[in-house]
Amino acid sequence: MRVTVNRKAHFNAAHRLYNCDWSDDRNIEVFGKCANPNYHGHNYELIVSVTGNIHPETGFVMDMKILKELIKTEIEEQFDHKNLNEEVAEFAKLNPTTENISIVIWNKLRTKIDKNLDLSVTLYETPRNFVTFKGDN
Amino acid sequence: MRVTVNRKAHFNAAHRLYNCDWSDDRNIEVFGKCANPNYHGHNYELIVSVTGNIHPETGFVMDMKILKELIKTEIEEQFDHKNLNEEVAEFAKLNPTTENISIVIWNKLRTKIDKNLDLSVTLYETPRNFVTFKGDN
Amino acid sequence: MRVTVNRKAHFNAAHRLYNCDWSDDRNIEVFGKCANPNYHGHNYELIVSVTGNIHPETGFVMDMKILKELIKTEIEEQFDHKNLNEEVAEFAKLNPTTENISIVIWNKLRTKIDKNLDLSVTLYETPRNFVTFKGDN
Amino acid sequence: MRVTVNRKAHFNAAHRLYNCDWSDDRNIEVFGKCANPNYHGHNYELIVSVTGNIHPETGFVMDMKILKELIKTEIEEQFDHKNLNEEVAEFAKLNPTTENISIVIWNKLRTKIDKNLDLSVTLYETPRNFVTFKGDN
Amino acid sequence: MRVTVNRKAHFNAAHRLYNCDWSDDRNIEVFGKCANPNYHGHNYELIVSVTGNIHPETGFVMDMKILKELIKTEIEEQFDHKNLNEEVAEFAKLNPTTENISIVIWNKLRTKIDKNLDLSVTLYETPRNFVTFKGDN
Amino acid sequence: MRVTVNRKAHFNAAHRLYNCDWSDDRNIEVFGKCANPNYHGHNYELIVSVTGNIHPETGFVMDMKILKELIKTEIEEQFDHKNLNEEVAEFAKLNPTTENISIVIWNKLRTKIDKNLDLSVTLYETPRNFVTFKGDN
Repeated sequence: MRVTVNRKAHFNAAHRLYNCDWSDDRNIEVFGKCANPNYHGHNYELIVSVTGNIHPETGFVMDMKILKELIKTEIEEQFDHKNLNEEVAEFAKLNPTTENISIVIWNKLRTKIDKNLDLSVTLYETPRNFVTFKGDN
Repeated sequence: MRVTVNRKAHFNAAHRLYNCDWSDDRNIEVFGKCANPNYHGHNYELIVSVTGNIHPETGFVMDMKILKELIKTEIEEQFDHKNLNEEVAEFAKLNPTTENISIVIWNKLRTKIDKNLDLSVTLYETPRNFVTFKGDN
Repeated sequence: MRVTVNRKAHFNAAHRLYNCDWSDDRNIEVFGKCANPNYHGHNYELIVSVTGNIHPETGFVMDMKILKELIKTEIEEQFDHKNLNEEVAEFAKLNPTTENISIVIWNKLRTKIDKNLDLSVTLYETPRNFVTFKGDN
Repeated sequence: MRVTVNRKAHFNAAHRLYNCDWSDDRNIEVFGKCANPNYHGHNYELIVSVTGNIHPETGFVMDMKILKELIKTEIEEQFDHKNLNEEVAEFAKLNPTTENISIVIWNKLRTKIDKNLDLSVTLYETPRNFVTFKGDN
Repeated sequence: MRVTVNRKAHFNAAHRLYNCDWSDDRNIEVFGKCANPNYHGHNYELIVSVTGNIHPETGFVMDMKILKELIKTEIEEQFDHKNLNEEVAEFAKLNPTTENISIVIWNKLRTKIDKNLDLSVTLYETPRNFVTFKGDN
Repeated sequence: MRVTVNRKAHFNAAHRLYNCDWSDDRNIEVFGKCANPNYHGHNYELIVSVTGNIHPETGFVMDMKILKELIKTEIEEQFDHKNLNEEVAEFAKLNPTTENISIVIWNKLRTKIDKNLDLSVTLYETPRNFVTFKGDN
């Protein structure tokens, strides 16, 4: 009898869409104003979802205090008020699309969460654009 | 490694719930005030979800600019500020419940989106009533 | 020491923007798709705000149960699932713009609320368009 | 061709996290401020999701008026303005975590909804913490 | 040229509406289910608004980091996960209606914020009921 | 009998808090992580409020189509997907705090809106931080 618990968090960051193997012209052609070399930014809203059995003693799938702290240490402190392209190592060569940021977040959290628990992340770039990644669960 | 990208859109429309094979009395009996022959209306909020692999060069499952434009042309321009029963051909004989509108939207978009991508639509009739249709994915 | 209490409510209605003293062409010219003769509709969200002194025995400016019931009787039951132009007497000759609907709502509630209390209404036609009317407070 | 219809509802309740087989000290150690013996409380937001085939005559998976009334009778009237630990029988010995409340709600609704329809519940304890339970669908 | 800066915060608490000078019957008669002696609770959402001139060097009316910390120390740590009637001194004899809680919050913050700045608080008891208090600004 | 109409819009931008008359150390000391020289960013949400008399023929205070277009031309096209410090002339020497951005927006719109109409802007830097500027109305 598996249950999913979800925790919402947020961080504010600058980024630009940029494929470092392409010319600047090609980047502008494909990514339009999102490729602006001076960057733009977003209030990212993140939902982390963890699925598993309820522990019979606590009534928890996972202690939300621990999940909240994990998101703070692993994601918020790494990404908040940062320039994703310039200051987050994972995006040195990886284009920080919402898709790719979601996978980076999933990978960072996956190693810290019990293997018996499934993990999914949903990342809102804006209230109108968002992405869900469930790994190979 | 499949990822889902989601795009939110909206349109405002009038409708009434009405089964054209029934008497007016039967329509009122089943659909209540929703069958009002003078119509009522909603701010419909639509989420279109597309699932597939990330393109290695763009970092996109699907270019959001293209998806946004597709929703605009295929759905918003057809439905916005319209009377669904009177002015949208698909509902000439089909009752415009949120369930049926979702399927009509899914069908309209399905023909325009790459077969390798799965499609799902979520349609909010009000903030309290909404429907999800995933096709036969 | 005056305090404002606010209560949120909602109703779904059809309408069209239409000045009955104008030709159809003039209506279309000024109001565009909002003048569609087949109507469109909205989920209206209403906030009713009442300002006054706190009653020392109850700790209330106004009992929210009474305000909720008043909004239900005077506004929701009159407007919900209606066609504003066709079925609400106040709009027989008055164009149901958000501005005019707000004033009609304010007038309907004003007569039912204690004269020592100030009244204001905010009406959302969509999450992106809304109007506030405070009377001649 | 299965479709999911969703209905949102809400109730306000007090609770504390408490395992009645543990000492008070152990409860405080594990649950922190959530174990406060004087209780705290939440505005719970509930989404009930029902999946099934569309009835060809009504265009409904399930009549939303019936689902709304069912949630009112079975859940809102049992939980709203209550102390979950003290006044809701299911939590006499069961810790009212969001996980456990979700399962209790699911069980209460499952017996009242047609077996051909799948049932899922999502319960928000706060806008930042929420749980989804799909039963053994 | 005065500008208003607003900061949103939240706390979860239990309470009951209760006038300690009245009989239990009278409390139930006036406050209904809100007078439940076992308490119920809410996710309170708080907006603190500070109005003043922009400091020419910082571009701030008030440093949001300081306001955030002030709300945390003075309000969140005092009210969060508490029973307002039992554990917050100000409500030992004062009925914790949203109106009265707003005034208590305003008074607690007023002494800590520069006299040249105007102060207003808006407190949401639920997304549908909220109160604004501006003091005698 | 004056009424306020409100229109919501949005833009995504990068910025840093920075007083160009201060040393870098002083900027970091006062503005903390908001002074990051590599920038961070936000999804700004803007509400433009216009107060005036209702035109008796249209039922409008101001045509929302015109206001929407004005916000698009004057604000969204100038600020969206831009680096405010580097690419928006008004912030060449002015620190782009939410307070200062609000005043810049107000000034840009004020010259384009009829003098008989009062103007106010509310700018959300995040869902938790926002500013209102009413000019010297």
